[in-house]
Amino acid sequence: MSESATVTTRHRDPRAVAAAIAALTRTFGNRLVTSQAVREQHGNTLTWIPNQPPDAVVYPQSAAEVQQIVRICAAHRVPVIPFGTGSSLEGQVNAPFGGISIDVRDMNRVLAVHADDLDCVVEPGITRKALNEHLRDQGVFFPIDPGADASLGGMAATRCSGTNAVRYGTMKDNVLSLKVVLADGELMTTARRARKSSSGYDLTRLMVGSEGTLGVIVELTLRLAGIPDAIASGVCPFPSVEAACNATIVTIQSGIPVARIELLDELQVKASNAYSKLALPETPMLFVEFHGSDAGVAEQSRSFGAIAAEFGGGPFEWATKAEERTRLWQARHDAYWSGRALRPGAGVFATDVCVPISRLAECVTATQRDIAESRLIAPIMGHVGDGNFHLTMTFDMADADEVARAKALHERLIARALAMDGTCTGEHGVGQGKMGYLEAEHGRPALDAMRAIKRALDPEGIMNPGKIVRVD
Amino acid sequence: MSESATVTTRHRDPRAVAAAIAALTRTFGNRLVTSQAVREQHGNTLTWIPNQPPDAVVYPQSAAEVQQIVRICAAHRVPVIPFGTGSSLEGQVNAPFGGISIDVRDMNRVLAVHADDLDCVVEPGITRKALNEHLRDQGVFFPIDPGADASLGGMAATRCSGTNAVRYGTMKDNVLSLKVVLADGELMTTARRARKSSSGYDLTRLMVGSEGTLGVIVELTLRLAGIPDAIASGVCPFPSVEAACNATIVTIQSGIPVARIELLDELQVKASNAYSKLALPETPMLFVEFHGSDAGVAEQSRSFGAIAAEFGGGPFEWATKAEERTRLWQARHDAYWSGRALRPGAGVFATDVCVPISRLAECVTATQRDIAESRLIAPIMGHVGDGNFHLTMTFDMADADEVARAKALHERLIARALAMDGTCTGEHGVGQGKMGYLEAEHGRPALDAMRAIKRALDPEGIMNPGKIVRVD
Repeated sequence: MSESATVTTRHRDPRAVAAAIAALTRTFGNRLVTSQAVREQHGNTLTWIPNQPPDAVVYPQSAAEVQQIVRICAAHRVPVIPFGTGSSLEGQVNAPFGGISIDVRDMNRVLAVHADDLDCVVEPGITRKALNEHLRDQGVFFPIDPGADASLGGMAATRCSGTNAVRYGTMKDNVLSLKVVLADGELMTTARRARKSSSGYDLTRLMVGSEGTLGVIVELTLRLAGIPDAIASGVCPFPSVEAACNATIVTIQSGIPVARIELLDELQVKASNAYSKLALPETPMLFVEFHGSDAGVAEQSRSFGAIAAEFGGGPFEWATKAEERTRLWQARHDAYWSGRALRPGAGVFATDVCVPISRLAECVTATQRDIAESRLIAPIMGHVGDGNFHLTMTFDMADADEVARAKALHERLIARALAMDGTCTGEHGVGQGKMGYLEAEHGRPALDAMRAIKRALDPEGIMNPGKIVRVD
Repeated sequence: MSESATVTTRHRDPRAVAAAIAALTRTFGNRLVTSQAVREQHGNTLTWIPNQPPDAVVYPQSAAEVQQIVRICAAHRVPVIPFGTGSSLEGQVNAPFGGISIDVRDMNRVLAVHADDLDCVVEPGITRKALNEHLRDQGVFFPIDPGADASLGGMAATRCSGTNAVRYGTMKDNVLSLKVVLADGELMTTARRARKSSSGYDLTRLMVGSEGTLGVIVELTLRLAGIPDAIASGVCPFPSVEAACNATIVTIQSGIPVARIELLDELQVKASNAYSKLALPETPMLFVEFHGSDAGVAEQSRSFGAIAAEFGGGPFEWATKAEERTRLWQARHDAYWSGRALRPGAGVFATDVCVPISRLAECVTATQRDIAESRLIAPIMGHVGDGNFHLTMTFDMADADEVARAKALHERLIARALAMDGTCTGEHGVGQGKMGYLEAEHGRPALDAMRAIKRALDPEGIMNPGKIVRVD
């Protein structure tokens, strides 16, 4: 059971909020906005969690301005909620206790690119597509790709990953250092630009995934990768989800450095065919990509094709043409929208879990059975190389029984993942939606440790309260 | 200036220690040892930091026994100091406030190997060689290789890395989950066995590198890699350190997935020739290794050879025979001992720093000049793909002036690395030796955050006190 339903009852002091807004208006003028439309836009919109708008939205242009905002809010004990592009899926940007949304859209500069060091320094509001556009001429790219054109600050805050993670890792692996405004307005630098360090507690990794509950990210130093000489992509049909998962396990065990390996179940293939105008056979499918030299990607593609054939999959058709690749991955990225298009006008909720890869086939298959028994329409796709998969549940919001069945399916999905030594979220984060599962996943001592850390770094509880852990 | 010189003055209560030892003896019998020799063996031995033995050493056989030990020590407010193999280099196992050393040598079992998931579960006392011996038949290995045959618990505690890190990452990248006994004796599990998660604060990474100051690691779930089909290794001479560093930068930028790329300076080559009976030309040298398919390593070796030639390096001679490879990497691993052998009977202190790779040539060259001007003998070797290098300073312990010159060189080395946006330690950790540099490296807000976390998780200050951060 999510805790989100209960948190709005906490006391909220309208005079403190008014005083903070007045102080912020004096400093930020018309960059402080209180219109209903803008406030609602800055609450959660993409899930079944209700929209809880902040009391105001402010648009800083520098780290120093974020420090000013946090200091004003701290003085009045008013919550601050960092906001990137609003593409998070668990209510991370909601304001259950009201407060000030800090929208970093104007902090979107690339401050430095160190191509020799394969790193760059950016402000938090830049999106991944804008960053890669900026980097393109320099032979480097930022590999993390969650599908949505999210902001880098938000991607770090939610510890996001996506299709490339099997080769390039998640945000935890690709953030070298952060500048973070803490609850008292101090500006903390988590690490130097060296590629590795054993110097003290890993504050970088503590901040990555903390969803604004420990501080506001105002600058990121990111690892980059060289743009590979050659890229080969292809699709490979399989007779069953199990066969596709087993082919994936052997591929990874064999040390084939697959860059992406994505599972689409029958229903997802059908949805993608319809939405993205593809003509794929409607059977479980792997979308695969290899990065390397010309000879390397050819060898990898052949090796993968042979493994797929062992499990009854194939033919594996691969191409190195940019055009065909783009069309394929666009379809993959549009999977969320294709899921919505399955039932126009229906409510949609996309959730994710992650299990050890050896349990993935079992987990997906049991979930498909559960969907059928629940009389729901819910395609599945997955970053199968990591054991991570997504369920896009569709439901008629007006049909209370269907909504209840969807919520029950969601509960059972998480219980199933946890029973397999998995996690309640591989990449969407906790926000409000997954708070209620953390104790079952981590156990009381870990949750107590998280609470102790939250209290130590945010004693007044003003940093994005009501997310990840409750401390009151 | 290191803080270690001052910490021994803190009050220490002999009655509390005696009471804890009595209580531990009742439970552990002759597995609680107080002999002078054993106690000294459990203090620091490999650096110039003085040996500060614990009051007693205890040998638990299970996580539950570690919980008992910590509870007894907590009741008497007596420090606990985790001990693996004692190969740490910054005084991490010293007992500046006395206390109980917890030697995990008897907790050395492999609890599970999940070859399909490329992970395993081990107790903290197992060493990396013993683990790889155990794994060998299953086609998988644990890639982190710090040279010493360290315990996995110690490797996680110090966030160690070593020669393979350029390809496989450091301990932070290869620990999936930990079980940790906290300061109150509770047993915390940091994460599930899923390969990735966005579920709450990253307690795993917080514990990795915390050197026993936040808890005692009693179990580790580790990522494994498939044993590559083919391995090619070779040595490549260069006209200068700069040429070797530039060849490395281009190699990594080109996306060649080099598994190891190690720099030895002229003096280190000379030392290794003498100690390891090699006949290498005495010029800066890269030791390189590639992992992949037969065709892959051949292609990578040719590409690297071409890059080396561009910078005046070569010939690059590579071999895929296990025998030759072993001889080469044994020489690399014996570098510390070869450094000691340069001046038999002399004191030796091995330190490490890490800088952005673009600054590495400049940092190494300036350090070589500084060594010459300091009239010291100190070979340099480095994990050059990460920008990390080691200085093995030799000095006559009886010559106060030479010791002073070595210490001054050390101070300047760290200042130089920090000025280049580097870190005071890439892989040896903080322990006592690097505590004094943390504020210069991280700044006051980060150090305050580390202190707040330390106080939150260890309010009585019993977990390996006097390491990483001071909280009194």
